[in-house]
Amino acid sequence: MELNKNKRILIVGLGLIGGSYAMALKNKGYRVSAITKEKEDIDFALRSEIIDEGTTEVNEDIVGKADIIVFALYPHIFIDWIEKHKDKIKEGAVLTDVTGVKSSIVKRVQDIIGERAEFIAAHPMAGKEKSGVENSDSSIFENANYIIVPTEKNTKYAITICRNLGETLGFKRISTLSVEEHDKMIAFLSQLTHCIAVSLMCANENEDLVKYTGDSFRDLTRIARINENMWSELFLLNREALIEEMESFKESFDKIYKAIKEEDAETIKEMMRLSTKRRELFDNKI
Amino acid sequence: MELNKNKRILIVGLGLIGGSYAMALKNKGYRVSAITKEKEDIDFALRSEIIDEGTTEVNEDIVGKADIIVFALYPHIFIDWIEKHKDKIKEGAVLTDVTGVKSSIVKRVQDIIGERAEFIAAHPMAGKEKSGVENSDSSIFENANYIIVPTEKNTKYAITICRNLGETLGFKRISTLSVEEHDKMIAFLSQLTHCIAVSLMCANENEDLVKYTGDSFRDLTRIARINENMWSELFLLNREALIEEMESFKESFDKIYKAIKEEDAETIKEMMRLSTKRRELFDNKI
Repeated sequence: MELNKNKRILIVGLGLIGGSYAMALKNKGYRVSAITKEKEDIDFALRSEIIDEGTTEVNEDIVGKADIIVFALYPHIFIDWIEKHKDKIKEGAVLTDVTGVKSSIVKRVQDIIGERAEFIAAHPMAGKEKSGVENSDSSIFENANYIIVPTEKNTKYAITICRNLGETLGFKRISTLSVEEHDKMIAFLSQLTHCIAVSLMCANENEDLVKYTGDSFRDLTRIARINENMWSELFLLNREALIEEMESFKESFDKIYKAIKEEDAETIKEMMRLSTKRRELFDNKI
Repeated sequence: MELNKNKRILIVGLGLIGGSYAMALKNKGYRVSAITKEKEDIDFALRSEIIDEGTTEVNEDIVGKADIIVFALYPHIFIDWIEKHKDKIKEGAVLTDVTGVKSSIVKRVQDIIGERAEFIAAHPMAGKEKSGVENSDSSIFENANYIIVPTEKNTKYAITICRNLGETLGFKRISTLSVEEHDKMIAFLSQLTHCIAVSLMCANENEDLVKYTGDSFRDLTRIARINENMWSELFLLNREALIEEMESFKESFDKIYKAIKEEDAETIKEMMRLSTKRRELFDNKI
């Protein structure tokens, strides 16, 4: 179900994701406000008609009237914001976020916010290689997953609002995971793959190799172009889960390394059969 | 320059690559013969008009009349074939191949063939996830690299024939590398990436994860669906170069692992900046 059209929605942080949320919501006829650091981002968003109003100050009026606030900020800025401005938030408002890691964020925000409002975490698994509000694009949600990450403190009401927001934004699939499940999944599917791509690019001075590069290397390293401030923060905030997934990858890589070193063709083939079988599932379930 | 139309070309081994060579050559009006193990592959190729004649036997007449023979076989089968049938080859014929590794093949074949004919190695860096002659597709060469891998035994004449073949097939870029350069490049760009993708799929029982998978994981593991017989053979034939590249990747991965473990944000960011800079080159030079 889509969100009630009377809900006033505030986006805090107009980057690629915040801007794309605003665009998707405005396209559907919602009233959208925004608060962000740079004046030019507000100007761009107003000019592009993806928001109705916006400021660079944390305006009491705008914050106080919002029924739903979406935080699209770097994790540490998000927590600072809540600490500083929680008293301006409307009582009973529903807050949500777009942060890529949860263990280190969700309980902390819920503790700070107390009974005044309710924070229900969400992770829109969507993006592009280009950041910034000027690259906003609501179509990035069409083929993407939206994950709701409730804790025992969340009410059915807020979880429903959060799901309705995901539906309104047009996500392909909406699911629910616990904080721990979410962070383990993200450590494996997203953070580990970024660690691998970065390591691979750093392993070899490859300027001369560019001209021989085929699709497989190109695909594998596409994500090696990376925003180092955001990703290093996300890696460290999910350190334990990520370290665990890195260790299990290292073990697996060491196994094929040892098999190649010892010319143990049977172990190599066995791993390839397993990887083929597992990867087939992905293609079948698209 | 394209090959002279009077040259009679024989393809030995009608799989995806052999079949795609045949298709590209027939489309340009060359006379193409084929020898392959399975009768149904010959029948398919005749029916699809990608060859003029073909047999499953190593026919003296077909082999003896060919000016150019392309071997599109598994490495060990290729060497066996040359040992067994070299006396049937026309004197002065030019032989070439499509094998993905060279050190363990090229000198051996040149030694066996002696003065009778000349073997000039080539590596068409093209493919698809589906194998077999029924998936032949000459368009796979359009955006691909063709690498000529001569040794000191090769003549200018044979190198030119080999280059003309690459041009006739429609490759985007044709380059020349030594046997050692080729195998080092392939170890890093192709074999290492396949080892990584296979290891990643084997690292985690991921059936439940399928539904959360984003593009980055999908791209990185596309090549984890792999023909285990061919790739285990290629890995082992290029064992030393591959082990070296695997070790340099392990070192790089261990560096980011250690930085995450020790919460050393500066090292993580430094690696990300380096990977971003190196990866940008790839996008600029497409």
